Amino acid sequence: MPLTADANGVFPIAPTPFFDNGDIDKSSIDRMVDFYLECGSTGMTVLGQLGEAPKLEYCESLDIASQVIQRAQKLPVIVGVSAPGFASMRALTHEVMDRGAAGVMIAPPNTLRTDDQIVNYYHQAVDAIGGDVPFVLQDYPLTFSVQMSPPVIRRIVTELPSCVMLKHEDWPGLEKISTLRNFEAQGTMRHISIMVGNNGLFLEYELARGADGANTGYAFPDMLCDVVRMTKAGQIEEAHDLFDAHLPLLRYEQQPGVGLAVRKYVMMKRGILTSAAQRKPAAPMSEKARVEVDNLLKRLARYDRRADV
Amino acid sequence: MPLTADANGVFPIAPTPFFDNGDIDKSSIDRMVDFYLECGSTGMTVLGQLGEAPKLEYCESLDIASQVIQRAQKLPVIVGVSAPGFASMRALTHEVMDRGAAGVMIAPPNTLRTDDQIVNYYHQAVDAIGGDVPFVLQDYPLTFSVQMSPPVIRRIVTELPSCVMLKHEDWPGLEKISTLRNFEAQGTMRHISIMVGNNGLFLEYELARGADGANTGYAFPDMLCDVVRMTKAGQIEEAHDLFDAHLPLLRYEQQPGVGLAVRKYVMMKRGILTSAAQRKPAAPMSEKARVEVDNLLKRLARYDRRADV
Amino acid sequence: MPLTADANGVFPIAPTPFFDNGDIDKSSIDRMVDFYLECGSTGMTVLGQLGEAPKLEYCESLDIASQVIQRAQKLPVIVGVSAPGFASMRALTHEVMDRGAAGVMIAPPNTLRTDDQIVNYYHQAVDAIGGDVPFVLQDYPLTFSVQMSPPVIRRIVTELPSCVMLKHEDWPGLEKISTLRNFEAQGTMRHISIMVGNNGLFLEYELARGADGANTGYAFPDMLCDVVRMTKAGQIEEAHDLFDAHLPLLRYEQQPGVGLAVRKYVMMKRGILTSAAQRKPAAPMSEKARVEVDNLLKRLARYDRRADV
Amino acid sequence: MPLTADANGVFPIAPTPFFDNGDIDKSSIDRMVDFYLECGSTGMTVLGQLGEAPKLEYCESLDIASQVIQRAQKLPVIVGVSAPGFASMRALTHEVMDRGAAGVMIAPPNTLRTDDQIVNYYHQAVDAIGGDVPFVLQDYPLTFSVQMSPPVIRRIVTELPSCVMLKHEDWPGLEKISTLRNFEAQGTMRHISIMVGNNGLFLEYELARGADGANTGYAFPDMLCDVVRMTKAGQIEEAHDLFDAHLPLLRYEQQPGVGLAVRKYVMMKRGILTSAAQRKPAAPMSEKARVEVDNLLKRLARYDRRADV
Repeated sequence: MPLTADANGVFPIAPTPFFDNGDIDKSSIDRMVDFYLECGSTGMTVLGQLGEAPKLEYCESLDIASQVIQRAQKLPVIVGVSAPGFASMRALTHEVMDRGAAGVMIAPPNTLRTDDQIVNYYHQAVDAIGGDVPFVLQDYPLTFSVQMSPPVIRRIVTELPSCVMLKHEDWPGLEKISTLRNFEAQGTMRHISIMVGNNGLFLEYELARGADGANTGYAFPDMLCDVVRMTKAGQIEEAHDLFDAHLPLLRYEQQPGVGLAVRKYVMMKRGILTSAAQRKPAAPMSEKARVEVDNLLKRLARYDRRADV
Repeated sequence: MPLTADANGVFPIAPTPFFDNGDIDKSSIDRMVDFYLECGSTGMTVLGQLGEAPKLEYCESLDIASQVIQRAQKLPVIVGVSAPGFASMRALTHEVMDRGAAGVMIAPPNTLRTDDQIVNYYHQAVDAIGGDVPFVLQDYPLTFSVQMSPPVIRRIVTELPSCVMLKHEDWPGLEKISTLRNFEAQGTMRHISIMVGNNGLFLEYELARGADGANTGYAFPDMLCDVVRMTKAGQIEEAHDLFDAHLPLLRYEQQPGVGLAVRKYVMMKRGILTSAAQRKPAAPMSEKARVEVDNLLKRLARYDRRADV
Repeated sequence: MPLTADANGVFPIAPTPFFDNGDIDKSSIDRMVDFYLECGSTGMTVLGQLGEAPKLEYCESLDIASQVIQRAQKLPVIVGVSAPGFASMRALTHEVMDRGAAGVMIAPPNTLRTDDQIVNYYHQAVDAIGGDVPFVLQDYPLTFSVQMSPPVIRRIVTELPSCVMLKHEDWPGLEKISTLRNFEAQGTMRHISIMVGNNGLFLEYELARGADGANTGYAFPDMLCDVVRMTKAGQIEEAHDLFDAHLPLLRYEQQPGVGLAVRKYVMMKRGILTSAAQRKPAAPMSEKARVEVDNLLKRLARYDRRADV
Repeated sequence: MPLTADANGVFPIAPTPFFDNGDIDKSSIDRMVDFYLECGSTGMTVLGQLGEAPKLEYCESLDIASQVIQRAQKLPVIVGVSAPGFASMRALTHEVMDRGAAGVMIAPPNTLRTDDQIVNYYHQAVDAIGGDVPFVLQDYPLTFSVQMSPPVIRRIVTELPSCVMLKHEDWPGLEKISTLRNFEAQGTMRHISIMVGNNGLFLEYELARGADGANTGYAFPDMLCDVVRMTKAGQIEEAHDLFDAHLPLLRYEQQPGVGLAVRKYVMMKRGILTSAAQRKPAAPMSEKARVEVDNLLKRLARYDRRADV
């Protein structure tokens, strides 16, 4: 079941669970995938930026992708295959597609500058992985230092039919979504799925601008699922109320560097992960930060009981 | 009354009011300064990053600084003097200090990389403006691409006695504040004022980590004043409640590029500015964004009547 | 006599002569301009990147531009007007055009990334300075971190008739010149002057690819004039011989940072400047570097007597 | 025979030979290694920046490293192991050290900014590969955007005993070599080998400043060997004469992007490589560039018969 341009809903970005000694925690992987399924996810992504992929041996990466794909049952699984070279990208892509992945996600190397360089890079990537593999275009300038204007995204979508989804993490990004959806309305760009990243910091307004859902890793994917569902059902103010209650914690988790530690800590407190450990080199959370997150959870729990952990 | 290392409270970053035709709106400057005074500000900053300083003629810059300094009565006014060359920096500094400014703010040029380059730059800046002019060190890596580690800040503070304040806008930044305050506790760095920027996105926790207040431009400086006051009075949860109510709008205003349009629009709706106009080249707000901001204000007004505009 | 798209030959980039105490050395300015005239220059540029423009007071900049324009007699003088804001750019442009400048040079701010951002910036600059002022597009990615692809340059040339010259300093750049000249041959871009910068490091081959000459600051502009003249006269191998003899020194002078010190030192030894001093903050030359430059000059003098200084 | 801080002479950076169809050309590898041995190399480096390493499958990388190590007989072979993650770096390091490599070379990821970040990264890398593996610190700001000041290099050398060599490719770099050698003379840094990269553009003066030799890929490594030998024998002017004769071609080959095509083309003409092909995505040479390189070779052959190919 390959990924298509109709993808929508919530695809959580899965962290990689480790034990305190650095070993991969396979039972937490199962529990995490089950949790994603139960809370209404429509797919998931592994080996993304915050999946600690660079710390994994190659065979470990394949094992994790395989386990998630199998456990996710019929849900589409996207695998991050960004790599410094096309040889590694092709090898990993073929391995995970053989194992049942629905598609792959490709981030641009941070040396790209001009529009032509960006478009050309994705041509080369598709040459490497094959035009039959659906891929997600990751647009995350804050981390990758690569700025894709709407016309560049349109060129990629138009010239490369295997591009089916945009992982949208530009900031600011609301007008970008409107511009792309406007291209579609005018008939100058075919439809693709737009799923928002960036921890969903503007999710409510991004949905109103035409995003199809979220592809991000906030420790309460169930809230993301609720907001997307409510919004589609027209319960706009209720969706805002729920989102706004989570915003103080969500903003805290969205911090670069320490964000992953916060996410894993909350997922551990929620019983999804056995340990909040990161593999070395880790960016741990200070004791002060732990107290702050506990306080954020306590305050959130007044509104959303799921935070009472 | 020069700026000192004891500065605290809220120093709003003042936008520059324009009429729709691009002329400077002097009556709005007076109204704005009066508003800052009334809501409990303890100082203010003009000609900062979001003050559209690069669009001003030199004499216009001086006029604005003069007007704000006179209207602000006894409150200290900081003037942004960042410039591509030390000659302009020195000239502007001397002009505004003569007019009664309390100090100047200096941002690093975005070509600086190594620790030594950063420290050396501030030595050269102090050579240019004179060691008797109190200055604010602006640490804003997201915009300037210059990363100052805590040891670098300590070197600047230690080697340059005229550095009296840090405008802290690193992201993430909570641990940085703790580290600097820890340097002070250990006696390895003298005390300086730390005021947070970045639209105050983490204000509540930054105060708890040791920040002295805020030096930023959110369209509700009265809220910032309230939060600082409540926090100092030990009303921590009340401060959180007020801050969290504002967070959806504050986050929206904090977006790069469009943020200034949002800020000016809200300040216009609040009756502070006559027009939300920016001087060319402007980054205007779309109609969709206007509706979103109106919605954010309406939702905020349920909690804080000041947003009912 | 405004600058036109037919500009060719050698336009030296003039350094700003200072005395050791930092004062501007006006007699050296006259001597330098006279030297440029005598050696066959067809124009010149002041207040460029290596003209220490940011260290000048505003009125000093105007004085220097005026002096050079008057002394240069009928030769066109280009003035660098790059500035962080359009207000300063407009003010300086109008002042120098009133004083008889032939055109201005505008470098892109190093925050530009996408093709549209670059094109848009030059539209805004022309809005600011006026469409009647001929301008030079400076393409220098190594220093400005802005990459202009040939299609972007074509868009600027096509959309902005007042763009008459490209100061070409991309690296590598030979194919870029060929591509642009090919656009012209195909009729998809109007003709503009292409003058090479980057210390002329590839001058001989750049001329063969279609460059019109050089717009750079090497301490032997007379050699640059000779090479352009010989090349136009078909004395290709003689031009190579002369250029290659200078290449060891030219390469040494092209080093970032220390290059200006080398240039001024050689110009002082040649009797053009009274002092090699830079205004603070200066990047001086070590004693070891001085010995190396003396050695390079001595070796060069075996081939070119002008280096026997 | 592990790499030590006494390494000197010339360690060519080996390109990876391919056939036109993209297959690895093993017989050219043998011929190339034999050539390096014959011309007086004292070691060599494989899988460096210009070795097209990112285009190789993992097992291909190992095969190439193995073949070079065996063929190089007793000469030390350094293997580039820079990778986005420490897991891959460790895996590759262990594989090649088992196969007889003398050490590894590690470039910094281009996200590093502050001094502490850089030092910390190398600590983590040594944690990953093991403190018993000699490593080369690659200092190449132009490509990696990471600026290592001399004090940072000293910290790395002092804190990490397995750092035995600096591949010096800063630009400008002469004063940096002098500063590091001065640290050693003052006893504040232990001695390490300094080998210059950057195509040897300043080799003659870098040797005079204290460099031990070259670790770069210019298509005439025999010239580099000659220059190092002559310099050590006190034949300074002869060394300059030979170097200067090569400088026009060397400068042309040093161009980013197209440089590798030039290098492989010249090595093919010299009979070392069967084909000048690069594996996809390639940066080929235009017909115009080919003519230019032929001309540069012809001119060089007047002085150095080895260029008569």
